[in-house]
Amino acid sequence: MSEVAHPLGARVLAGDVRALARLCRLVDDGVPSARQALVELFPHTGKAWTIGITGTPGAGKSTLTDKLIGGFRARGLRVAVLAIDPTSPFTGGAILGDRIRMQRHHADAEVFIRSVATRGALGGLSRSAADIIRLLDAWQAAVVLVETVGVGQDELEVTRTVDTTIVVTAPGMGDEVQAIKAGILECADVFAVNKADREGADATMRDLELMLALGDAQRRPSAAAAGADRHGHHGAQSACGAAAPPVPAGGAEADGSWRPPIVRCVATRGEGVDELLKGLDAHRAWLATPPGEARRRARLADAVRLELRSALLGRAEDRMHDAIEEAVSRVARREIDPYSAADALVARLVG
Amino acid sequence: MSEVAHPLGARVLAGDVRALARLCRLVDDGVPSARQALVELFPHTGKAWTIGITGTPGAGKSTLTDKLIGGFRARGLRVAVLAIDPTSPFTGGAILGDRIRMQRHHADAEVFIRSVATRGALGGLSRSAADIIRLLDAWQAAVVLVETVGVGQDELEVTRTVDTTIVVTAPGMGDEVQAIKAGILECADVFAVNKADREGADATMRDLELMLALGDAQRRPSAAAAGADRHGHHGAQSACGAAAPPVPAGGAEADGSWRPPIVRCVATRGEGVDELLKGLDAHRAWLATPPGEARRRARLADAVRLELRSALLGRAEDRMHDAIEEAVSRVARREIDPYSAADALVARLVG
Repeated sequence: MSEVAHPLGARVLAGDVRALARLCRLVDDGVPSARQALVELFPHTGKAWTIGITGTPGAGKSTLTDKLIGGFRARGLRVAVLAIDPTSPFTGGAILGDRIRMQRHHADAEVFIRSVATRGALGGLSRSAADIIRLLDAWQAAVVLVETVGVGQDELEVTRTVDTTIVVTAPGMGDEVQAIKAGILECADVFAVNKADREGADATMRDLELMLALGDAQRRPSAAAAGADRHGHHGAQSACGAAAPPVPAGGAEADGSWRPPIVRCVATRGEGVDELLKGLDAHRAWLATPPGEARRRARLADAVRLELRSALLGRAEDRMHDAIEEAVSRVARREIDPYSAADALVARLVG
Repeated sequence: MSEVAHPLGARVLAGDVRALARLCRLVDDGVPSARQALVELFPHTGKAWTIGITGTPGAGKSTLTDKLIGGFRARGLRVAVLAIDPTSPFTGGAILGDRIRMQRHHADAEVFIRSVATRGALGGLSRSAADIIRLLDAWQAAVVLVETVGVGQDELEVTRTVDTTIVVTAPGMGDEVQAIKAGILECADVFAVNKADREGADATMRDLELMLALGDAQRRPSAAAAGADRHGHHGAQSACGAAAPPVPAGGAEADGSWRPPIVRCVATRGEGVDELLKGLDAHRAWLATPPGEARRRARLADAVRLELRSALLGRAEDRMHDAIEEAVSRVARREIDPYSAADALVARLVG
């Protein structure tokens, strides 16, 4: 394995929490030496299991995250948490009361919790998040939990950088939230219906099942009827037989694809957390199958393209700063449209 | 003014609603001829007043949007609405019950309502939204209302493409939502505290005022005490005198900067909508001042960079498809890190 010359990087690899915290901050601030550490640490990454926790605001994601920390610690695993907050550079760091709920783990040296703010920068969030996740991985965290607060593009991008995504929802969150659920449907590897002791939990379960069946219908028209029928029998064991892991209505399908299990929980009381962990384990096992491997590779390809896009824009800014400013002025005067201006700049840079 | 040869483009410019709907769809689908229409229509854009409506899910954004449509129609203005939904290509178009609330305007030929889905593509949302906004502008809409559903990076990007941003919140939405408010604080040109007849409305007003004062303290340390003091007197007329337009606790400041007014409303009953319109008008007047112009230009520069980034990546994919795939394979084998791989690809493309 390659040497890590960067002093902080070497300490992170040795499991030093303080070095990890400092390096996270340097990465966040875009300090050039931090990039060197990332480059050197990269060969030491790829071992952590990264789990995204996203979903509707107020669904209880932080409480559930807290319970998952507890669950993984009970297995003796080192856990890192990255909380992605849409707080701005303007207001400074995170001001989440939710973070306090995780404080009980702060005395535990095998748990590291870090918040990262949403950057205003173009595509800045997911790059920064991906970099920090690699640091947590290099620190030898066995599990990295990535919790997001919002429900937009951020979350979609974050789910594309993790191995397994939990989408958390709760009963009775209204129309708008239903729409959000539809948006993140395809990102979910496991659904958690939290606050399942509340009125409307059954309806929420049914909605999710229906949406999954509709998704099947679009993805694989032949499977539509079967999917709709199976999910009509809520709570019944999956009909696809031996291939399905022991999680209700979900898991690996006969054709090798993954169907998200839907798990009811009441995170505040710890109910359903074991079932959730089972669903996560089943997904991890699926990731080692050929379709799972293919997904991992596709996500890595996304990561490379993200870096490439950023590096290209950086190079363009270096080489053509004045030309870009001039193009902006011409667009402002409406002498040229932004599409043609961009094409002209690309032609000038690349030929 | 330049000719528009594109048949649909020419019809859009003449105010044809059906042509507009078709062209929106072609732009959404990324059809090459649609790009030609955008290029030709660009010189005819820049006249519409674009207003973003964002904020916490469930705060009543759609109802407020509906009332604003009514308010601008009462002034005889042509209005277009772009609703940005985080629904996926997977689930098809928008499934928002909220949209129904705006249906009463559907019979009005001077109102055009369009939903656009969040794309999974990198930076795809804001490009697509910006393009559609330009079409609505070319259709001679006097006002373009851009309503977002989520509260993440999408919204931050959308707010950067509009002239004026309304951030809508409502009392009693919990900790997590407080954090979201902090994140979009800097994007707000006007705050609307909707459902202001509910318990907790005064507390929400105070929270927002406090956050604005804190923002002042970071931005202009000298103004901190004054800001905190003025906002301690909730509801009092702004202390900054003649420079302040007649909206409570907000407007243009003595130093030329803009302080977001905070407007209470009960959208379902139409209460506070006139005050909201006044706040919007004041902001529009501010946009014509030198600091307002500077902001418009900075946003246009962002738009050009967004196009440039996209065009660069497109060119890289064309020229180096195999090299990118090879780089991904090497990163997957951890032979190289994504940072160095991206740099090598850039060097190969640009030199």
